[in-house]
This record gives sequence, structure tokens and C-alpha cells, in this order.
Amino acid sequence: MKTIGILGSTGSIGTQSLDVIGWFPEDYKVQVLVANHHWELLAEQAKKFSPAVVVICDESKYSLLKEALKDFKGEILCGEEGLHVAAAMKVDMMIHGIAGMAGLSPLLDTLKVGNKVAFANKESLVTAGHLVMELVKQYHTVLLPVDSEHSAIFQCLMGGRSGIRKLVLTASGGPFRNFSVKQMETITPAMALKHPTWNMGAKVTIDSSTMMNKGLEVIEAHWLFDVDYDDIDVLIQPQSVIHSMVSFKDGSFIGHLGKADMRIPIQFALTYPERKENPLEPLDFAKLGHIDFYAPRREVFPLLDLAYEAGKAGGTETAVLNAANETLVYMFLEERIKYTDIYSYAVKAMEAYNHIAAPSLEEILTAADWAKAWLNEVIS
Amino acid sequence: MKTIGILGSTGSIGTQSLDVIGWFPEDYKVQVLVANHHWELLAEQAKKFSPAVVVICDESKYSLLKEALKDFKGEILCGEEGLHVAAAMKVDMMIHGIAGMAGLSPLLDTLKVGNKVAFANKESLVTAGHLVMELVKQYHTVLLPVDSEHSAIFQCLMGGRSGIRKLVLTASGGPFRNFSVKQMETITPAMALKHPTWNMGAKVTIDSSTMMNKGLEVIEAHWLFDVDYDDIDVLIQPQSVIHSMVSFKDGSFIGHLGKADMRIPIQFALTYPERKENPLEPLDFAKLGHIDFYAPRREVFPLLDLAYEAGKAGGTETAVLNAANETLVYMFLEERIKYTDIYSYAVKAMEAYNHIAAPSLEEILTAADWAKAWLNEVIS
Repeated sequence: MKTIGILGSTGSIGTQSLDVIGWFPEDYKVQVLVANHHWELLAEQAKKFSPAVVVICDESKYSLLKEALKDFKGEILCGEEGLHVAAAMKVDMMIHGIAGMAGLSPLLDTLKVGNKVAFANKESLVTAGHLVMELVKQYHTVLLPVDSEHSAIFQCLMGGRSGIRKLVLTASGGPFRNFSVKQMETITPAMALKHPTWNMGAKVTIDSSTMMNKGLEVIEAHWLFDVDYDDIDVLIQPQSVIHSMVSFKDGSFIGHLGKADMRIPIQFALTYPERKENPLEPLDFAKLGHIDFYAPRREVFPLLDLAYEAGKAGGTETAVLNAANETLVYMFLEERIKYTDIYSYAVKAMEAYNHIAAPSLEEILTAADWAKAWLNEVIS
Repeated sequence: MKTIGILGSTGSIGTQSLDVIGWFPEDYKVQVLVANHHWELLAEQAKKFSPAVVVICDESKYSLLKEALKDFKGEILCGEEGLHVAAAMKVDMMIHGIAGMAGLSPLLDTLKVGNKVAFANKESLVTAGHLVMELVKQYHTVLLPVDSEHSAIFQCLMGGRSGIRKLVLTASGGPFRNFSVKQMETITPAMALKHPTWNMGAKVTIDSSTMMNKGLEVIEAHWLFDVDYDDIDVLIQPQSVIHSMVSFKDGSFIGHLGKADMRIPIQFALTYPERKENPLEPLDFAKLGHIDFYAPRREVFPLLDLAYEAGKAGGTETAVLNAANETLVYMFLEERIKYTDIYSYAVKAMEAYNHIAAPSLEEILTAADWAKAWLNEVIS
């Protein structure tokens, strides 16, 4: 039986991870559950899975959680200290489903105790890829990607890395796939929150609609698979059936296909290198009928190229871009800025910051904080 | 430098293999070339690649070949004896591109000297799978499939066999994909010889149009990958872009995709487990635009199910089916029978033969000869 920790247990990745774990009660024992502020769901999860440690990051929910878990036998912690304790617990697999840059410190903590990580926090690699991959190497551990695209590529590379030409990251193209530049000006939060194929959190759904999510995934793929930016392509495929491919120099493409269900890559990270039967019905290709392909329209989705540029520039550029985007997405959701302002202000933030090459963790966090503060000053 | 032999060097597989070898003159040395009767092309190939041995199976072409290769330094042989000598030569890789049951004996010969085989002679596995796979085991060698579907599956399994649910053999569906049962009655040889995506020989093009080719490939896959017939699916995909897939029990499909160019799987068999860059342009998915999927219409293409039945029955059933089909295809090309008679007479031949379980090579050859003779008697 493998012990499991979940950082971000009440989020999209966390809840789906618990679905998967629930399919194999003999195989996995949940030891750690960490949530940000959804204390009610966390309490429910704690009762069901009886972990040794439960952490609520939002300290204001601590007493509510303690009250809800009166008869709970394990430890109940809160705040940053609690998160740190949880992340540093030794488990057979730490599922990292905390969204945003908030996930960076716990990732470093968990790598430092040598934990294997089922990895869904792309922002850590986007902002601090060089630091993260250094720790992975130093502690002889591994990041098993949970993002469907990166899990797909990981699986496609299991047959060998010889003769890789390119990684082909697929993208649904989002709800605005066919919009004109002019139509992009009219997008409201409600419109952007409807994703055609994947069921995800709000931030990543907006990022998916702007293709910033794909841009971040390109940077993530660069770090995970040690492939140059020029060798990472993006292909639009609205049905989200091909989850990504590797293009080889002999003309072969190896692809991972199936339903758009995050539980498949989550389960794979848990069972790797084995595969186990689960209750999901496999995709019926004949019923599906067809898969369409398009090249991304880079002029309508400029955040994609901005991510490539930031990735190639390296240093603090990706941290500033990521923090700016995160800040701007929430500003858009609060209707403080227009949809297309996400790009234009992100560019401005990147231009305004003094680039630092090979930054330390502190420099990365400072750059990100600066971007947030600067945007809040500029946009008022 | 690897030494290479080619059985069937002037056929579709043979000529394309020489294309591939021509791309890597530093890596491969052609030692053996065997053709059936195309002595002019064989002479050309011999001059270009300077093998140690050249064989023309059709003895009536021997003097023409000798004349054409007056200054040739290597040996020039002919007939069955020549074929046997060539097949039994020790090389690093024997490419087996002889079509039909004529390929069975040379396959056994080449396996018995421990040659690795780049394998494109599906009829050997269809008619004598148990004997062939026994020799592969006994002589610790390997069949590297060259059929695009089987190469695809082989490549998809390189990441591991854990949790296989099914093999999904893809099929173009051929030119009559949308024909009604009634329309099938009207098909002429000229109509059937036009294949929409793959460039192949006449016999296999007809087999592809009747879906018998897919049926034979199902049997081939059963032997190559040791998978039950009920776990082999067929999926129509007219663009021939997904060359086949493996469906795993966790909901994942791993697929091999790319252009419909036999040189890709041929090259892979030669370079395995490495991949090498070649001059082929990779498939442009955005330009392709889409892939369509259909379930095979089994009532319109009854030879597919007949192949499954024969495969499950085992013994001499597959040899009789294969020989009957081969005979009937040539009868159709000679306009001696209607297109739909291929199926109806194949059924009759199978019904008329006394099934033998676990047959010897001789019993297999006898069964095949019987089918041919019986059909020639019945259809006059």
C-alpha cells in the first residue's frame, strides 16, 4: 500500500485524485490532506480518508475545521506553517494540485524530503524551472506530470527518447477559437468561463480561453522534458482527444489519446509504470466521429507567443509574466479590465521590470510580488 | 554497418526498403537480393547495391539476369534452391517482403539461422502462426513488423504492456467504404485497384478493398502480440493517419500517427530501437485538417468476420481461408468471378475442407493447395 499526500485536496486536481484513490482502496492510503479555505469539503474528505494530518491554509477557517472534525484522530494544522509541515511529510507520492505560485514553496519543501510528486502546479516550473529541476536531480526524485498534455508526452516518451523532433502540445483552442480580433474585445467573464471540453478551475479556464494556459504549458514542457522552445509546437484540436504527441525524426508521431478526463493522467501518475483498470468507459472513436486540427491563430491569441518569448528570455521574465497574468485574470473576473487587457498589461509589466538572469527563489518571489503590486498601482 | 537481405526486392516492400537503405549508405550493406521475376529491376538493384548474392526465383529469367549482370562480382542464383540459399544466409536483418504463402518457407529458413526479420509477409503468420512463433522463440530472434498497423502497435507497446485492454487496428476502409451491399455486386477490378491512401501491390489493394486485408492483419496481430481475437478491434479511419493504437485499461490510448508512407515502418524495423532522421516531411496536422472515424460495416464486408472466425477456429482454417482468398482475388482480377464471389466461394471452400488442428507445415501447404485446386475445379 502506497502512502499519498494531497496538496490542494479540495480543488479540481485534489477532488479528482480522491476519486481515483477511491477506486483502489487496497492500494493507497491518504496520509496528508491540505486545502486552502474549503474547510467543509476538507472535513468531509478527512472523515472519509482518515489521514494522519489535515491542513487548512486559511487560518480564519481553522476553528471551523476543528469543530467539524471533533472526533478526528489525526493532527489538524493551519497556515503557512501547517502547509510546510504537510509538504515535508515523507509519503510515497505527493499529489501537488495547488494552483498558482502559491504552490512553489510547498513543491520545493516536498522535493527536499525526496518525495515523488504527481505534479499539476505548472506555475512552479514556469517561474522557477531551473530551481525545481535542480532539486529533482539533487534528491533523485521525479515529477510525474498530471497535466493531461504533459502526462501524454511523458507516456509517449516511455518507448524511448531516441530521435525526438518536436513535442506537439495539443490545445482545445477554447471557446474563442474562431473569434476575430474585434470579437475578442467583447468577451465577458461569463463567456470565458465556459470551457468546451475540460472541467477545470476558473483561473485555468480563463487561461485556456486566452491560450496563456498553453503558453505556460509550453514552458512547463521545456523544463519537464528538456526540449528547446523551438522544438515545442502547439496544435489546436477542439475535441481534446489527442492529449499531446511526440514527433520523431523518422516521421513517426506517438500520441496519447482518450477521453478528456483528468482522472486518467492522475491515475497514471499514481500507478506508473503500471496501468490499472478503472471504471471509466474508454473513448468510442467511431461514436466520436472525427477529430479536427487547426494551427493556433497567434495574432488573435498573442499571450501564446508572449509565453514563448518569456520562456526563451528565461530569468525572471516567466515569473513576471505568470504573476502579471494571474493578477490580470482576477482583475478581468472582477471586471476591472477588459479581456484583451490581460495581454496588453502583461506586456507592459514585462517591459517595466528589470530582468534578472538565473534568479534565486527570493528574486523570483520578489519579481512576482512586484508584478502584482505594479499592476494594482497602474490599474486602479 | 549492418548487413541486410531482402526477400522480394522488386516488390512494393522491397523497393521502398531500398529507398530507406539509400538514405543511410553508411549504416547498411545489402548482402542479398531476391526477386520473383522482375529481372530487369533486380539487375539494376544489384548494380547499385552490389550484394554478395542475387536470386531470381523464376528460372526462365535466369539467363536474362546473368546477361544483364555480366560484370557482376557476386553470385547469381535462381529457383527454389536459390531462394533457400538466400533466405538461409546470415545477415543482421532480413527484410521479408515476399507476398503470399510463397513467403512461408523462406521465412522458416531465415528464422532457423537466427536472422532477425523485418516482417511484411502476413500470410506466414496467418497460415502458420504457431510454427513461425515457435521458431522465433526457439532461435531467440525477433519479427519486427513492417505492416504499418503492426509497426504502429509494436511502437505503442514499447512503453510497456501493462494493462493492455485492446489492440485497435485502423483501416482506411478502402474505396468502397460507403458502398451498399447492392453496389458491392457491381465492382470491377479497375475500381478495386484504386486505393485511396496507401500505395501497395495489386493483391493487397484488392484485399484492402474487401477488408480481407484487415482480417488477415487481425490474425497477424494475434500472433505477433499474443492478444486474443476478442481483444482486437478494427476502426475505420479513411485518412490513414492513425496507423493503429493500443487501448489500455486505464482509459489511455497510445497511437502511432503520421503520413501513410511504408518507408516509415520499414525504416523503424531497420533502426529499432533507435530512430533516425530521414528526408520525409513530417505530417502537418493543421494542413490535414481532420481525421474521421467509423465502425466497420461488417455486413457489407463479411470477409472481415470470416477472418476472425477462421482465426478463432485455428488449425488449417486460416490456411484454407488465405489460399482461397488469394486464388479468388486473382480469379476476380481475371474477371472469372464477381467481386462478391470472393467471399461466397471462400466460405464454401472453408466448409468443404476437413479441419486439422495444430497442423504441420506439410498439412498447411496441403490445405492451401487443396483450396486452390478445389476452387479451380468448382469455378470453371
